[in-house]
Amino acid sequence: MAYMPALSYEAIADGLTVCTSSLHRFGTDAVLLTEFSGYRQKDRVCDFGTGCGIIPMLMQRQAPPQEIYGVDIQPEAIRQMCLGIAESTAVQSVLHPVCADLKNLWEDAPAGQLDLVTCNPPYKAYQAGIESQLTAQKIARHEILCNIYDICRSAKRLLKFGGRLCICNRPERLADCIDAMRQNGIEPKRLQFVAKAADAQPWLFLLEGRSGGKPFLNVLPLRIVGDGSGVTTRLEKTMPV
Amino acid sequence: MAYMPALSYEAIADGLTVCTSSLHRFGTDAVLLTEFSGYRQKDRVCDFGTGCGIIPMLMQRQAPPQEIYGVDIQPEAIRQMCLGIAESTAVQSVLHPVCADLKNLWEDAPAGQLDLVTCNPPYKAYQAGIESQLTAQKIARHEILCNIYDICRSAKRLLKFGGRLCICNRPERLADCIDAMRQNGIEPKRLQFVAKAADAQPWLFLLEGRSGGKPFLNVLPLRIVGDGSGVTTRLEKTMPV
Repeated sequence: MAYMPALSYEAIADGLTVCTSSLHRFGTDAVLLTEFSGYRQKDRVCDFGTGCGIIPMLMQRQAPPQEIYGVDIQPEAIRQMCLGIAESTAVQSVLHPVCADLKNLWEDAPAGQLDLVTCNPPYKAYQAGIESQLTAQKIARHEILCNIYDICRSAKRLLKFGGRLCICNRPERLADCIDAMRQNGIEPKRLQFVAKAADAQPWLFLLEGRSGGKPFLNVLPLRIVGDGSGVTTRLEKTMPV
Repeated sequence: MAYMPALSYEAIADGLTVCTSSLHRFGTDAVLLTEFSGYRQKDRVCDFGTGCGIIPMLMQRQAPPQEIYGVDIQPEAIRQMCLGIAESTAVQSVLHPVCADLKNLWEDAPAGQLDLVTCNPPYKAYQAGIESQLTAQKIARHEILCNIYDICRSAKRLLKFGGRLCICNRPERLADCIDAMRQNGIEPKRLQFVAKAADAQPWLFLLEGRSGGKPFLNVLPLRIVGDGSGVTTRLEKTMPV
């Protein structure tokens, strides 16, 4: 039987709670990606690999999009997302928790209809041979069940023409992410690096691509922010609402 | 008859002079690229689109590589490079000024033998229709006679396995440059953005690719440097020797 970790409930705003565990929790990267995505109220959105549902939930704090799909291949992640929603009174979007393999989309997936796909993906390239167990944590952090090319291909299928894919990743994966977007007709349009200090190597980048867009990448000024420790501190530092 | 601009001689160090004109001069970007390239004394090097030969000449200031080809399609650029060499007493590398179209390489080109190719290329994508005259300045600044894909293809042919291509460009071209390297078997390995201030948008990036390299991009801390005005100030600020 699969290991069932202890669950915690973390308030991220008045009336908004996420259910976290040691397997499906969240970090500063999710907060930064949510803000970077620049979602609008009229948007229909999908969050790939949603985990505990942190990105759909953060979007509830201010001017939420009309509809959000939260997709994860792991049933326990979707269960946590549902538990968080059940504890939250201030959800304004229509939320669809979906347990599915994003490589194949899912029945009734809104193909060609979405304005925005977000994805805080597994960061580490899959190294054949070093993974002996398919644990939940490895699935969430390594490209075992899907890689950045799968993510871009599925995003392309869901997005309307001109729709946007916003992802974050470690700087060493930038070439892979740009390549994966381009191979799937999503043009990289906006890039921001995140570092702990002005003279430090970046620890994260945020990248927006546009389905069917023309080449011209807008590289934003460096964003300086620590990678945080306590959740409350993290939220206050990175995205006060 | 072609317009012949006035020539100037600029000393870049004791015994090192470059011959500049309004058509073939140099900027901070060439100085930054030379430093970024990390050339070594045992290297055999080629500089694509060398113009007045500033990069081969800057490499003479400290621990020069053993041999440098300077290639430009414009005869007047190569003439200026030769005039600069003739005025310089402190050249230590074997220098080969070559007037050629780098798309086709040239007779006796050292295919598969070089350690390093540098290129400070035309920055602007060619927009069909807006160029009415093929002036020297347009050739140097727009992708009229060669584009970043041509540059990567020719660099690949010249480099030995593991050899490096170092280029600079405007941030909006980053996706094109990464794509062009990858399409030609040159893996982006090291990236640095250059901005005028810690909170400014970058105005340049420096990118190193390795022929046959494995994916893993090292993104360096932001380099803060103005884009300069006077030549002497530029050299002092960016690369004191």
